[in-house]
Amino acid sequence: MADKVQFAVILSGCGNKDGAEIHESVMTLWAIHKHGADYQCFAPDIPQHHVLNFITNQEMEEERNVLVEAARIARGNIKDLAEYRADDFDALVIPGGLGVAKNLSTFAFDGPNCVVNEEVERAIRDTATLGKPIGALCIAPAIIAKILGDVTVTIGRDPGTEAAIAQMGASHSKTTHGEIVVDREKKVVTTPCYMLDARVDQIGDGAENLVKAVLEMA
Amino acid sequence: MADKVQFAVILSGCGNKDGAEIHESVMTLWAIHKHGADYQCFAPDIPQHHVLNFITNQEMEEERNVLVEAARIARGNIKDLAEYRADDFDALVIPGGLGVAKNLSTFAFDGPNCVVNEEVERAIRDTATLGKPIGALCIAPAIIAKILGDVTVTIGRDPGTEAAIAQMGASHSKTTHGEIVVDREKKVVTTPCYMLDARVDQIGDGAENLVKAVLEMA
Repeated sequence: MADKVQFAVILSGCGNKDGAEIHESVMTLWAIHKHGADYQCFAPDIPQHHVLNFITNQEMEEERNVLVEAARIARGNIKDLAEYRADDFDALVIPGGLGVAKNLSTFAFDGPNCVVNEEVERAIRDTATLGKPIGALCIAPAIIAKILGDVTVTIGRDPGTEAAIAQMGASHSKTTHGEIVVDREKKVVTTPCYMLDARVDQIGDGAENLVKAVLEMA
Repeated sequence: MADKVQFAVILSGCGNKDGAEIHESVMTLWAIHKHGADYQCFAPDIPQHHVLNFITNQEMEEERNVLVEAARIARGNIKDLAEYRADDFDALVIPGGLGVAKNLSTFAFDGPNCVVNEEVERAIRDTATLGKPIGALCIAPAIIAKILGDVTVTIGRDPGTEAAIAQMGASHSKTTHGEIVVDREKKVVTTPCYMLDARVDQIGDGAENLVKAVLEMA
């Protein structure tokens, strides 16, 4: 029997407003295990852009670290993204949440002119260079577009984000709940998740369809 | 068409070591939506017992609030448990995580002699008094045992916790991954989840089987 397919999952904190979207992250891990594969979580060892109170939406006067907070979703089993080697994994997945646009990149502030964290950029480039598949949920396809340029992705149907993706040289396909877009040449799979007003089971559908499509190319 | 069944879900923070177990919480919300019901999350507005760094397992020198941190899992849509009225809901579910034993109660420190937070106790008692079903995952059955006494529950197969449950006047049934125990008289459904060394899809199975059994009694 072949070894299990190994996914690397990049988390951007813990919570959709200032970190990784928790439902998307967990449903991704669930789908990976459900389909007989395994995962290792990673996150960059950097400060969060800010910490929000999720009830008031106000900034809290404290500092949190992306890797330390992401460890909550990973139940402590997480590695510094600087340790990621594309050779050691079969596929890379990035769940969404505003942490992708505030911590992993500056997309929330700079749109198509954003800067992507150098370890995140290296992980995406190295994985693509080795011809291994990459999955991205919710807003995460924006940073795939920034790094890979000529790639077809989906973030659902948000005109502003679609325009930014086009400005970064990528193509956008509109989708709805649970749907995925597969760029077979670039081996990139994307799904909108909470870029739409979704129920948790719809997040599960999107994550599972994405993981299945990634597995077919792994 | 009947209105959707309404679940109240009590969260105990955000992260298995000092708050609500994130995978169990999300898989519970997923199962509720998957089976056509809806939920409102609640948490007590109290300080966490402590804040852990999930990588080093060391205490961090900061304070966090259970309600504010639980709001991360609920994407901001959460209410103070003091506002919970059993009349307004069809069922109550409590996911696990050490937050149940450190924040919602003192079970982690005092075992069978633990004290349960008064709002949590009121929520459990009021729900049971109205004959509405209660679900509890992982370690959460311990506080159901403390409040309801003569009830049959499962936390899997941990001898120390089984003994504590017996000392609180409840009965324990051994289970493994995804299995549930249903006390039809008390309308209490329990499942072991991460009280066993589980995969995420096994957590999904347990949460889904629990939600289905609760729905049958709602």
